[in-house]
Amino acid sequence: MRSGWIGAGLALMAAGAAAQERTIPTRPLPVPADVSPQMQAIISRPIAPTFNVVPKTPEEWAARQKASADGAVQGVTALAQRLHVKVETRQMAGVTVYEVTPATMAPQNRNRLLIHIHGGCYVLGGGLGAANEAVMMAGLGGYKVISVDYRMPPAAYFPAALDDVVSVYKEALKTHPAKSMAVFGSSAGGALTLETVLRLKQLGLPLPAAMAPGTPMADLTGVGDSFHANAMVDNVLVSPEGFCGPAAEFYAHGHDLKDPLLSPVYGDYAGLPPALLTTGTRDLLLSNTVRVHRKLKDAGVEAELNVFEAEPHGAYSRDDTAPETHQAFGDIARFFDKHLAR
Amino acid sequence: MRSGWIGAGLALMAAGAAAQERTIPTRPLPVPADVSPQMQAIISRPIAPTFNVVPKTPEEWAARQKASADGAVQGVTALAQRLHVKVETRQMAGVTVYEVTPATMAPQNRNRLLIHIHGGCYVLGGGLGAANEAVMMAGLGGYKVISVDYRMPPAAYFPAALDDVVSVYKEALKTHPAKSMAVFGSSAGGALTLETVLRLKQLGLPLPAAMAPGTPMADLTGVGDSFHANAMVDNVLVSPEGFCGPAAEFYAHGHDLKDPLLSPVYGDYAGLPPALLTTGTRDLLLSNTVRVHRKLKDAGVEAELNVFEAEPHGAYSRDDTAPETHQAFGDIARFFDKHLAR
Repeated sequence: MRSGWIGAGLALMAAGAAAQERTIPTRPLPVPADVSPQMQAIISRPIAPTFNVVPKTPEEWAARQKASADGAVQGVTALAQRLHVKVETRQMAGVTVYEVTPATMAPQNRNRLLIHIHGGCYVLGGGLGAANEAVMMAGLGGYKVISVDYRMPPAAYFPAALDDVVSVYKEALKTHPAKSMAVFGSSAGGALTLETVLRLKQLGLPLPAAMAPGTPMADLTGVGDSFHANAMVDNVLVSPEGFCGPAAEFYAHGHDLKDPLLSPVYGDYAGLPPALLTTGTRDLLLSNTVRVHRKLKDAGVEAELNVFEAEPHGAYSRDDTAPETHQAFGDIARFFDKHLAR
Repeated sequence: MRSGWIGAGLALMAAGAAAQERTIPTRPLPVPADVSPQMQAIISRPIAPTFNVVPKTPEEWAARQKASADGAVQGVTALAQRLHVKVETRQMAGVTVYEVTPATMAPQNRNRLLIHIHGGCYVLGGGLGAANEAVMMAGLGGYKVISVDYRMPPAAYFPAALDDVVSVYKEALKTHPAKSMAVFGSSAGGALTLETVLRLKQLGLPLPAAMAPGTPMADLTGVGDSFHANAMVDNVLVSPEGFCGPAAEFYAHGHDLKDPLLSPVYGDYAGLPPALLTTGTRDLLLSNTVRVHRKLKDAGVEAELNVFEAEPHGAYSRDDTAPETHQAFGDIARFFDKHLAR
């Protein structure tokens, strides 16, 4: 299966842009000294030799999905204990969600609700592990969070994931006004954050008061300079020839990858709520994050950007003991506090 | 002459970090399709084969300085004509400045004044060409700007440049309240923007209402992950083994490179005015820009960050016809409008 990310690169070369292409020579990339030891450990991880091993059949995708889900349960359970957060499995509008509640909640947060959308290239990251970032936000930011365990392929394809998030949001509207809610998530969850708000706008539903798309997988068509500049620099996504492009295409299931509900950088951002975007300098999706930031600003949306030093894809939510994690979620918590009604 | 940037890299390797160092393989870097044609032209420029040719004597530095200054006059003159901006050479407190006045100025800007500090690795960028960014801000943003043609080595060394900017600022305080002023500049000028505000704080002088450090050369000690990750990716500064490190050391003249008045990332940011930082994803100083952004936020300073897609060092002020240039200066103009008293 050819990824859209790879395909677009080939198309660009065929169009003649290769004449201006430069070749970057091989070079050393030391671990930076001025990030926390926890972040140095994350940055030091070697590139997995299987980064570009792509399942070939629905059964292989399902097996990888199950292995990912099973492997995450223990971590999120321990995280919830460390951060004194309660995680309860519920159904909302027929969708499995994790209701994540911090042990203590400031008075101004008691009527507020965050909707969290997990990442995993639209195929991985489900099950209880979906709640990982939600637990961090509840524990570090003191918010109640609903994390959506949306349907994924091969069980269900585009727009099933988006439909599930929208269904949960509509259900939440029955108990919380939109002005007291925000949506957030990282990677595919960052893209789904944007896609959800774009879809709510299409549907004429009230928009949440704020959003925090983390390193959004905002463009499945291969556009984004850091796909090339940060190839082999980012030790998580690694390269546009990695797993994530084919996984997103598996979800798209033949649908036009440039649809803003799959590549939200191409959406109409007029009227969208204030946004705080988060990424890292080594992130393969650095460009797609800054492109979304620019598009939001050009549309007149209040949009802030955090880029963390030397962090690969999604590193700001990997270790709850890292000061950088507290900075990232602390900033999002303050941003939501500024914009959400009490 | 060994640059501090290079020296720190070697020290890091000697300390054992090399064991965790990865080697990034050679790879193609296409010109992105989703930036303006003007920006594509800037990004397409080949790396100058002389990027790491460093003068060896004061006379060679002076010759390079003069060639740079002479070469810039025609461009800034044409720019001022295109943007309908008047540029007049004046003396303020014994320092040569360029008073840059737009043809039309909105009522709210008539009592406001911006102080501009040019870049050029502390050695280049002087003469009338110093005013280049000031002309863009006046023409695109509608502000009156004073651009400081500060002394540079070999005529004068650290802290001469900083002293000159502070002298001009103090002189400007006689006609404009600090709350109606802002300071801005790029590269060494971005560092000098931060150094100026840190120095004003030391001196107990009133601080400007806002600042806009563009891609600040904020760390001369070699720290900053993008020195490595964006080496040979940034076609302007190119590499930590390039011209700029030795030039800054030539200015430092033996002074401790970690002094916050030379490496302002190490300053105490408490109480500093709101800041808008600008850089690009290919910028060799991407890391130093985001490190300053984080330090400002951690100190409780209102700090915003713009990172432009695929832009090498300082590209946002290279071509006044590029939409990206209008975005960058438009954002800074709005940021100043928000924070400066009328």
